[in-house]
Amino acid sequence: MAASDEGARGRTGSTRRQFLLGGAAAGFGAVAALSAEHTLDRPAAGAEPAPLHGTETVPFHGAHQAGIATDAQAYATFVALDLHDGVDREALGRLMRVLSDDAARLTQGEAALADTEPELAVVPARLTVTFGFGPRFVERAGGEAPSWLHPLPAFAVDRLEPGFSDGDMLLQVAADDQLTVSHATRMLLKDARGFADVRWTQRGFRRAHGSVAPGTTMRNLFGQVDGTANPVPGTPDFDEVVWATEGWMAGGTSAVVRRIHMDLDEWDTVGRAGREQAVGRTQASGAPLTGTAEHDEPDFTARTDAGFSVIPEFSHVRRARGVDEGRHDRIFRRGYNYDDTPSGDHVSDAGLIFACFQADVDRQFTPMQRRLAELDLLNRWTTPIGSSVFAIPPGCEPGGFVGDTLLT
Amino acid sequence: MAASDEGARGRTGSTRRQFLLGGAAAGFGAVAALSAEHTLDRPAAGAEPAPLHGTETVPFHGAHQAGIATDAQAYATFVALDLHDGVDREALGRLMRVLSDDAARLTQGEAALADTEPELAVVPARLTVTFGFGPRFVERAGGEAPSWLHPLPAFAVDRLEPGFSDGDMLLQVAADDQLTVSHATRMLLKDARGFADVRWTQRGFRRAHGSVAPGTTMRNLFGQVDGTANPVPGTPDFDEVVWATEGWMAGGTSAVVRRIHMDLDEWDTVGRAGREQAVGRTQASGAPLTGTAEHDEPDFTARTDAGFSVIPEFSHVRRARGVDEGRHDRIFRRGYNYDDTPSGDHVSDAGLIFACFQADVDRQFTPMQRRLAELDLLNRWTTPIGSSVFAIPPGCEPGGFVGDTLLT
Ligand code: HEM
Ligand code: HEM
Repeated sequence: MAASDEGARGRTGSTRRQFLLGGAAAGFGAVAALSAEHTLDRPAAGAEPAPLHGTETVPFHGAHQAGIATDAQAYATFVALDLHDGVDREALGRLMRVLSDDAARLTQGEAALADTEPELAVVPARLTVTFGFGPRFVERAGGEAPSWLHPLPAFAVDRLEPGFSDGDMLLQVAADDQLTVSHATRMLLKDARGFADVRWTQRGFRRAHGSVAPGTTMRNLFGQVDGTANPVPGTPDFDEVVWATEGWMAGGTSAVVRRIHMDLDEWDTVGRAGREQAVGRTQASGAPLTGTAEHDEPDFTARTDAGFSVIPEFSHVRRARGVDEGRHDRIFRRGYNYDDTPSGDHVSDAGLIFACFQADVDRQFTPMQRRLAELDLLNRWTTPIGSSVFAIPPGCEPGGFVGDTLLT
Repeated sequence: MAASDEGARGRTGSTRRQFLLGGAAAGFGAVAALSAEHTLDRPAAGAEPAPLHGTETVPFHGAHQAGIATDAQAYATFVALDLHDGVDREALGRLMRVLSDDAARLTQGEAALADTEPELAVVPARLTVTFGFGPRFVERAGGEAPSWLHPLPAFAVDRLEPGFSDGDMLLQVAADDQLTVSHATRMLLKDARGFADVRWTQRGFRRAHGSVAPGTTMRNLFGQVDGTANPVPGTPDFDEVVWATEGWMAGGTSAVVRRIHMDLDEWDTVGRAGREQAVGRTQASGAPLTGTAEHDEPDFTARTDAGFSVIPEFSHVRRARGVDEGRHDRIFRRGYNYDDTPSGDHVSDAGLIFACFQADVDRQFTPMQRRLAELDLLNRWTTPIGSSVFAIPPGCEPGGFVGDTLLT
């Protein structure tokens, strides 16, 4: 409506950005004065505008790739690529150099080198780009594949569609602004298309930046608090669960991306008690059935007067952890909701882009998924329809590129 | 990661909301202390957190429906419904009563009556729900259809797909948080499904709330500033362009929703000068080719030394306005970008959900679209693939329902 270009008020605005944006950043006062409808968070005309989160950046370079320990952004697009025939080790090196250069720039709010829409690049909004390699990528690179880099074993609950499974390469592009995700994804795919085709794309979301308090655990489309019992980035526990330590993968990790359809219609027919027994936590606050607050430690030994476990043996959290097998398996979950266009007489095609990171898929993820496939009340309403495993190489230093420990 | 439930810090949090949220809102300080990665906009541990926009609401009741003059939210889902056979005037009354009740609650951050995921309803994030009626709806209601309530005439540029065109009813569900849009849409569709099936769904986005300065004109996926020459809500000009004044439609308006595919690949091959000539404005700031700032008034009489119009005769803005026919046609545009999953070897399936509102489609929109279909350089890269027209009835007062001027 009124003037002032995107990012023009950014506190980290560079000269380059100002150049790209052209024109003057006038008119804020006018807008504030005109738009009387919802002035709740708007400063009065003339006052200092609220700080803009669009200018926030997450460093691209470092020991680990960004987008894993990064506080999950509001939007993420996951893209799997299939390499063209004949793309060899040398070509993979070129590909990863170009993509790393794009990502290094875009994540800092700068246009990529070949960017024809540089104006869309000036709102980084905590953009991260995380690269993953499938089995064929590592094979073509002539590298030693981690022992766990293979499709997961088949589980009885699976109804996998090839169009949502596997892939030679993963791009996880995440930011607090969907236009940013959209532009960055396209930029990367344009530079990748000489080397690879898109195999599948999955788009996910969580609550918007600033709509709820920082640190709020996300809710999934069943209405559940989802992500409570998760290692906390920045702690030794997280480092131990997530980061690989050996060879070219040192500082890297593994990603499991599973598309899990959630039957919202059936779920809607289930009462509160049934829902809470299925998970072992309340829907209202996410507290364990043995506690009152979300982060209370569940008491798996507690029993009802009738002698049943308060957190049932078949409940999702008990099965996931492996309590009754005397285990406590750990992964780092960082998933997103999806809600796509339904077909037929369905009113929703929704679910979870279940994404998790762990040092070793076979040791940490697979036993958990096997237990859940055997028995987990949630299975009644959830169906895995896609599944992929990727090696996430470590981060790179300025001058290097993601994958350089494998490709140089 | 840490405690504190969604909305628990909302400044307008009601007792009901607190009840739904359960548990204590602890742990913010802990999160701020732990998450060292991007503390840019985070208050230091112990400081007051930034205000949350998730609690902002837009009034549902009023002379006009919300979601038109409302400053465009970051996300919108457009759903067209087809009525079941046998849904008569009486049933339409029941349908609109239920949907209005849902919308009245959800937009104020309250669960709908039949809501089984009330926890997803507590973050209104400026949610609006706007209802529209197609020709068959008005016919079944036994009302007098506005003269312009019919599919648009065919245009040579059209490649319309039935799966993105027409419909008996429109829901435009918009908010600054996609989980909110998702939940509200589903809630409405659950209550509508006894009466109607989903015909099509289109999901769109703009920049996130707070990522750029309030009042910033959106950019589309061509990188253009899109929405500059638009009537400004709250002005007499806007009221004149947008609101109908007669019969049951008084205080209502019309919506044209066209899905316009944008060929980003071809666009990428066009240089700056070519792009700017096609539109008549610069890509950097959106200024007219005769000016320097976005909101400078274009000078359509200005000529180059060689005698050509500086803003070319074939340019989009000149053709849209009707300058060379001595007209100045007006509509209110409120569109959204879309970016869906591409197929084949394409890397993007993107475009604009072109949505506009005007008092009279035939008088205001159609002459403009006819001119653009005849000649508009943008046509080279844009293709309309969906088209619908809806009557948007006026708003309702508490106790009433949307459509009550037609149905009671
Ligand atoms: C759509 C499918 C799924 C839904 C709706 C779901 C939902 C939940 C919910 C509500 C919780 C409790 C809160 C929390 O700690 O986050 C939870 C915990 C957990 N889930 Fe899932 N989950 C799904 C699939 C999976 C899968 C496929 C795995 C791994 C194979 C998994 C592993 C876990 C783990 C490890 C926990 C924490 C258990 C603990 O307390 O130690 N979940 N999930
Ligand atoms: C994908 C298709 C389209 C794109 C990319 C596009 C883009 C633009 C851009 C960049 C502007 C200049 C900035 C502004 O004032 O917003 C503009 C102006 C405008 N467009 Fe479009 N547009 C599209 C389709 C349409 C259609 C279908 C119509 C109506 C039939 C339309 C009507 C207008 C009008 C009325 C203006 C303002 C003209 C004036 O200055 O008075 N546009 N459009």
